[in-house]
Amino acid sequence: MFLMGESINGTRKAVGEAIQARDAEFIKALALEQVEAGADLVDLNGGVAGTNEVDNLLWLVDTVMGVTDAQLMVDSASPEALEKGVQAIIDKGGKVPFINSISGEQPRIDAVLPLIEKHKCPVVGLCLSDEGIPPTADDRFAVAQQMYDLCTGAGLPPQDLWIDPLVLAVSADPCAGQVTLDTLKMVKANLDCRTTGGLSNVSFGLPNRALLNRVFVAMCAGIGLDGTIVDVRNPQMMATIKAIRALNGADNFCGMYLKAHRAGQLG
Amino acid sequence: MFLMGESINGTRKAVGEAIQARDAEFIKALALEQVEAGADLVDLNGGVAGTNEVDNLLWLVDTVMGVTDAQLMVDSASPEALEKGVQAIIDKGGKVPFINSISGEQPRIDAVLPLIEKHKCPVVGLCLSDEGIPPTADDRFAVAQQMYDLCTGAGLPPQDLWIDPLVLAVSADPCAGQVTLDTLKMVKANLDCRTTGGLSNVSFGLPNRALLNRVFVAMCAGIGLDGTIVDVRNPQMMATIKAIRALNGADNFCGMYLKAHRAGQLG
Repeated sequence: MFLMGESINGTRKAVGEAIQARDAEFIKALALEQVEAGADLVDLNGGVAGTNEVDNLLWLVDTVMGVTDAQLMVDSASPEALEKGVQAIIDKGGKVPFINSISGEQPRIDAVLPLIEKHKCPVVGLCLSDEGIPPTADDRFAVAQQMYDLCTGAGLPPQDLWIDPLVLAVSADPCAGQVTLDTLKMVKANLDCRTTGGLSNVSFGLPNRALLNRVFVAMCAGIGLDGTIVDVRNPQMMATIKAIRALNGADNFCGMYLKAHRAGQLG
Repeated sequence: MFLMGESINGTRKAVGEAIQARDAEFIKALALEQVEAGADLVDLNGGVAGTNEVDNLLWLVDTVMGVTDAQLMVDSASPEALEKGVQAIIDKGGKVPFINSISGEQPRIDAVLPLIEKHKCPVVGLCLSDEGIPPTADDRFAVAQQMYDLCTGAGLPPQDLWIDPLVLAVSADPCAGQVTLDTLKMVKANLDCRTTGGLSNVSFGLPNRALLNRVFVAMCAGIGLDGTIVDVRNPQMMATIKAIRALNGADNFCGMYLKAHRAGQLG
């Protein structure tokens, strides 16, 4: 389970304020905290309403690269921010960053595919088309297949495409979780790319969301989810992820699980 | 997720002592406690070393049927105990009981298949052959296919065969959990029977077993595990199962989940 640390996101109030104030210590601490908690990658989203996202993102890149050489992921709705963020990371000698994200939406394909072709950036692919999020697993899979064909056609190794099946709230639609599980099964059975997801939408509107989020990550992991976009600073979620790795063979002879136990991290 | 309450088992010390002492109040309370906690079925195992298992089982049947009309499951290694237990339940007007279990072992097939043919008992089928528990998912699935062919050939509706893929300890073999997950995927993809499992072996030898057991049930549920043989009196396991049902669409508009939340049962 490859962990994509989601916490540096300008749409969160405290982070947005830190970005606006150019509070480098806050951002550096947040980056290090995630890496130390086990993030395999640090997502950077500079979107703060009423500010210049490109400037924000370039400042985030500069700030975070000053404190860690962790793999980064450039996360933006703006084609310009993605392009400049990717270029800045490469120019500074960082690893080729992930892009968050491509989808089946034509304007998104037009913006992101050239970056993939040029830099071979690993990319998160959202199962979302110009018509929105398809209600059925078959239709979400069709978007996954389309993204697979486009990205591999642009020279991206299949293992660098991370399909996100997307999930909506089960409080609004009881089938929402199962559609995601079914989409994941189809991707795992038919494509040799990888899979990931920011899964916490599933619990929107319900009490004890953390329980639902942990259980849903485990359900997806049973099918073979390869990564997740997650708050790695949540101890109970991390205990679940350490259990998943012990259970699916990713933690040989449970060494990391036992280490976490000795450190009192399993609750 | 169909819950098979495992607690009335003579191999557990307190239960074995209660069976030997013919302590009906203890057994009745254990049956009711499981039904009230959400068991869909109550397993009865009268095996206590140095005692007559048939007598024990018939006493358990009598005792438990005196206090609940819940579905029962006759659980024994003894062909005679299975036959007499099943007959006693039917004679007393109970629902046709489940049998725990058939397997790919020839002596077991010879003992159990006639009972299935005669009474159409739903049955748990262990993926285990005369050579033991196969190490690969392919070979476990072959046993599942064999049991499927035998049971449906004996007139059992496919939905009344509950395949248990079996699980060994990940502490001894890091692949043990994944083999179970892979077997489950093959059964779900290829057979129209159901699936169940007593999954707690997976955590044998490790600390915080309850965490591993909960996470593994959720991983199996993601693939589509239909039931589990479980201690329904464990509040954290039950919170996980209620979350699973909310997430896979089995709990329409999360009514049971919300009820459990209001009752303070979700932790």
